[in-house]
Amino acid sequence: MGGTGPQGKGLGYRFARHGHDVVVGSRAADKADTVAAEIRERLEGVEGAGRVSGAANADACADADVVLLAVPWDGHDELVASLPLAGKTVVSCVNPLAFDKRGAHGAVIDGGEGSAAEHAARLAPEATVVGAFHNVSAVLLWGDEEFLDEDVLCVGDSDEGKEVAMELARAVTGRSGVSAGKLRLARVLEPMTAVLISINRKYKVNSGIRITGLDHGEA
Amino acid sequence: MGGTGPQGKGLGYRFARHGHDVVVGSRAADKADTVAAEIRERLEGVEGAGRVSGAANADACADADVVLLAVPWDGHDELVASLPLAGKTVVSCVNPLAFDKRGAHGAVIDGGEGSAAEHAARLAPEATVVGAFHNVSAVLLWGDEEFLDEDVLCVGDSDEGKEVAMELARAVTGRSGVSAGKLRLARVLEPMTAVLISINRKYKVNSGIRITGLDHGEA
Repeated sequence: MGGTGPQGKGLGYRFARHGHDVVVGSRAADKADTVAAEIRERLEGVEGAGRVSGAANADACADADVVLLAVPWDGHDELVASLPLAGKTVVSCVNPLAFDKRGAHGAVIDGGEGSAAEHAARLAPEATVVGAFHNVSAVLLWGDEEFLDEDVLCVGDSDEGKEVAMELARAVTGRSGVSAGKLRLARVLEPMTAVLISINRKYKVNSGIRITGLDHGEA
Repeated sequence: MGGTGPQGKGLGYRFARHGHDVVVGSRAADKADTVAAEIRERLEGVEGAGRVSGAANADACADADVVLLAVPWDGHDELVASLPLAGKTVVSCVNPLAFDKRGAHGAVIDGGEGSAAEHAARLAPEATVVGAFHNVSAVLLWGDEEFLDEDVLCVGDSDEGKEVAMELARAVTGRSGVSAGKLRLARVLEPMTAVLISINRKYKVNSGIRITGLDHGEA
């Protein structure tokens, strides 16, 4: 998985905690190693945890079945184009946001007809690209709750790809992610994070989204 | 309130059920009368219900403090420009959606830098425009549950205006709506309805959104 920021680190921790082997990727391998060590430290004593290591981005991808893109939008396209993604399931949780005095909002991508996830799909045509984990609080991911009280919305044009993300979501929420439509709906999920950031600032909380009306293993 | 479609009818019913007087608006006064009669029928025996009547759109607005825009995006601008909205709080729940073989998605407005709510604000500069109630299922609004198990996200540039919508939300969910940022974030809430429609189709449900991490009077 690519990304040593709070979102990538938090998701890597959650995935490893539930048995997935994780290779943290970064431009600089030593940065990735540092984050991997932080995650391993938090996993001490967790039975059944996966192995966690660090590597330069391309090396981190090389042996992975699933690549999580948790990278900044700035530089996204160059980075994605440089990675060996063919044949892999690529999960994008990239949130192209902009900030000004009025708060967070979605960056306008391709005149409103694009998203980071769609960019990844175009740049890695032999990968199966899915959008998921956009709206999960990095603070809560790194926190102590066993599971986060929210849903992971998964969008994609491949049902198989979506199912990979929906299964991964179990490590975060304790239940399957929600199949939420085609990849282009990442145009909504990505800037939805700006709405949650606005709520967080207003109420001093770490908010998340739950989908009501579903019965998919909720308490 | 303007709109005799399922969203407008359902919201009118919920508002009246909790004591708000409602004037249903439509292009044709007799269509509005018919919908008002349907709502009154459902309110029979409900103590403390508000009065419900019908009128042509402009007449429906004339004496209202709060105007709910629950109208199609097609023709939205002409209609809004024709209404006497100065000095009023205008709540837009308009969802500009498009549908094709791949399902529902957001219509692209102003190259990704606009929304129905922002259009309303521009067309009615002396009104206080808020976006809210976009993601509430019309089926559930017209259904039998006392309250809907979801949150009403309210966006706007006026805190006073947002509070009007947040209070109105109590009639729908039993608790205050959620202050979710500036009006431009309607660019996210409007097409979020396409995500819920996709979930509804996939799981055969009537889905809604709840914000987790908040403590605002939840059970």
